[in-house]
Amino acid sequence: MNPSEGALPGHFYLVGVGPGSPDLLTLRAVAVIRSCAVLVAPRSESSSESLALQVAAAYIDKQEVIERIYPMARNQQQTESCWAAVADVIAARCQDGRSVAHLTIGDPLLYSTAGYLMEQIAARMPRERWHVVPGISAFQTAAAIARQRLTLQNDRLMVMPATCIPDVEAALTSCETLALYKVGPRLKQLAAMLKRHNLAAQAYLVARACQPGKELVLQGLDSITSEEIGYMSTVIVPVGHRPWTRTGEGG
Amino acid sequence: MNPSEGALPGHFYLVGVGPGSPDLLTLRAVAVIRSCAVLVAPRSESSSESLALQVAAAYIDKQEVIERIYPMARNQQQTESCWAAVADVIAARCQDGRSVAHLTIGDPLLYSTAGYLMEQIAARMPRERWHVVPGISAFQTAAAIARQRLTLQNDRLMVMPATCIPDVEAALTSCETLALYKVGPRLKQLAAMLKRHNLAAQAYLVARACQPGKELVLQGLDSITSEEIGYMSTVIVPVGHRPWTRTGEGG
Repeated sequence: MNPSEGALPGHFYLVGVGPGSPDLLTLRAVAVIRSCAVLVAPRSESSSESLALQVAAAYIDKQEVIERIYPMARNQQQTESCWAAVADVIAARCQDGRSVAHLTIGDPLLYSTAGYLMEQIAARMPRERWHVVPGISAFQTAAAIARQRLTLQNDRLMVMPATCIPDVEAALTSCETLALYKVGPRLKQLAAMLKRHNLAAQAYLVARACQPGKELVLQGLDSITSEEIGYMSTVIVPVGHRPWTRTGEGG
Repeated sequence: MNPSEGALPGHFYLVGVGPGSPDLLTLRAVAVIRSCAVLVAPRSESSSESLALQVAAAYIDKQEVIERIYPMARNQQQTESCWAAVADVIAARCQDGRSVAHLTIGDPLLYSTAGYLMEQIAARMPRERWHVVPGISAFQTAAAIARQRLTLQNDRLMVMPATCIPDVEAALTSCETLALYKVGPRLKQLAAMLKRHNLAAQAYLVARACQPGKELVLQGLDSITSEEIGYMSTVIVPVGHRPWTRTGEGG
C-alpha cells in the first residue's frame, strides 16, 4: 500500500483518528479518509452522533457514511453478530471495488471497537487488502497536555482499564508509570487507594482532552471531591523511575 | 496555544515525528515544524544525520536547523550537562521571540531523549510557553504493520525495554500484551525465554519499520537464527486475554 496517496480501490482501512482534535490525526489517516468511497463509524447507543465522525468532519465530503450502533452490553454473542454484520457490509463494498475506512477514536488496536471488527474482517478478506492506520492514544494525549514524561531508560509503562481497583493496586508494583482508562465512576475509590500508597499527589487526571473549553487537567488526586468525571478520562500515576543499572545495556 | 495554526513566537515545542514515515506525523506536528523559526534535533554519535530530521525533511525549508550529538554513555552528569547546554540555546532563541521545535522519533514522552531535555526546559521557561506534540510510537506501528490487536476489554499492556531478560520474564505474569523496545542484541536470549513459556510462536518482531524495502516482519520467534536485528526493532508478545468479568464494569 502507498497510503500517503490515499486509499486503494477494494481495500479496507482501520483508521485511528486520535484523541479528538482534528489536527491530531496523522497525514496518512487524513489521506485515507479523504480518498475513501465509504466511511464506517461506530456510535454508542447513548450518543446522537459518532465521536470519530465528528473528529474527522473536516475531511468528509462526498463519501458514503455508514454509522453503526455498537452494543454496550457485555454479551459476547451479541457483540460478535453485530460486528459480523458490519464486516459483511464492508467486505461487500470492497468486493465491488470501493475503498472503505472504519474510523475510531484513539488507536484502532488499543481498547477500540476496531479490535472486534478486525477479527471479522480477517475472516472475510485477504490479508493484503486490509490495513491499520495507527492513531494517537488517550494516554499519550494526557501526558502531553500535562507535560509529564511517561518513560525513560529502564522504566516500564502499564496501560490498563481502571475497572477493578484491586487489579490497579497490584499493577503498582510492576511498573514505573501506570496509565488508566475508563476511570469514570471509580475515581474516588482509585484516589483513596493511591493515597494509601502515597501516590495520590503525583497522579494526574485529564478529562475531555481536546474538547476546547471543556478540557480538565487535575494535578494531584489527593483532594478528590467530585464523582462527576466522565467516561473519556485518563489517570496517569507516576510510580517511580528505573535508571540504567548495568553497563552494556542497549542505549 | 492554537497549534493547528502553527508555532507561536517565543514558544517551544517538543514534537514527536512518529515511527519514520513522513505521512505518520500528525497534522499538528507538521504545522509546528513548518512554521517554526528554529528546529533542534538529536543525533547519535554513530549516525551521520539525525533520523528525526530525515523523517521531517519534506517539511523543512528555511528554518534554522541545530543538530546536537547526544551522549550514549550512561553517565548521568554528562547527559545532564549536554541537555542543559541544548536547553540554554533553546531558551535564548525563545527569549529573542523566535519559535523553536525539538524533533524526536516516536512520541516525545516515551523513551525519548526529549524526556531529558524537558526537565531542563521546565527549569528555564514558564510552563505556558512550552508544549508537547505527541507522536505515534514504535509499538503502535509494529502492531499496525502486523495487523494484530494490542488490547481489548480488561487487557493490560506493558511497554518496556528488553534490556534485562529476567525482568521481561517477570512481566509476562502481569500483562496480556507485552511490547519490548531495544531488543537488538538480546533477540536470541529473548526467543529462548519465550520458548520456555510457550509464547515464542505467537510473538512477532518488526524491524526497520517504515523504511521502504528494509522493513522486516517476523511472525513467530520460535526459529530465530540471526543475531542481526538492529536497534530499531520492536517485539510484541501476545500473552493472553482478560475479558470483562463483572457486570457493571465501565464499558
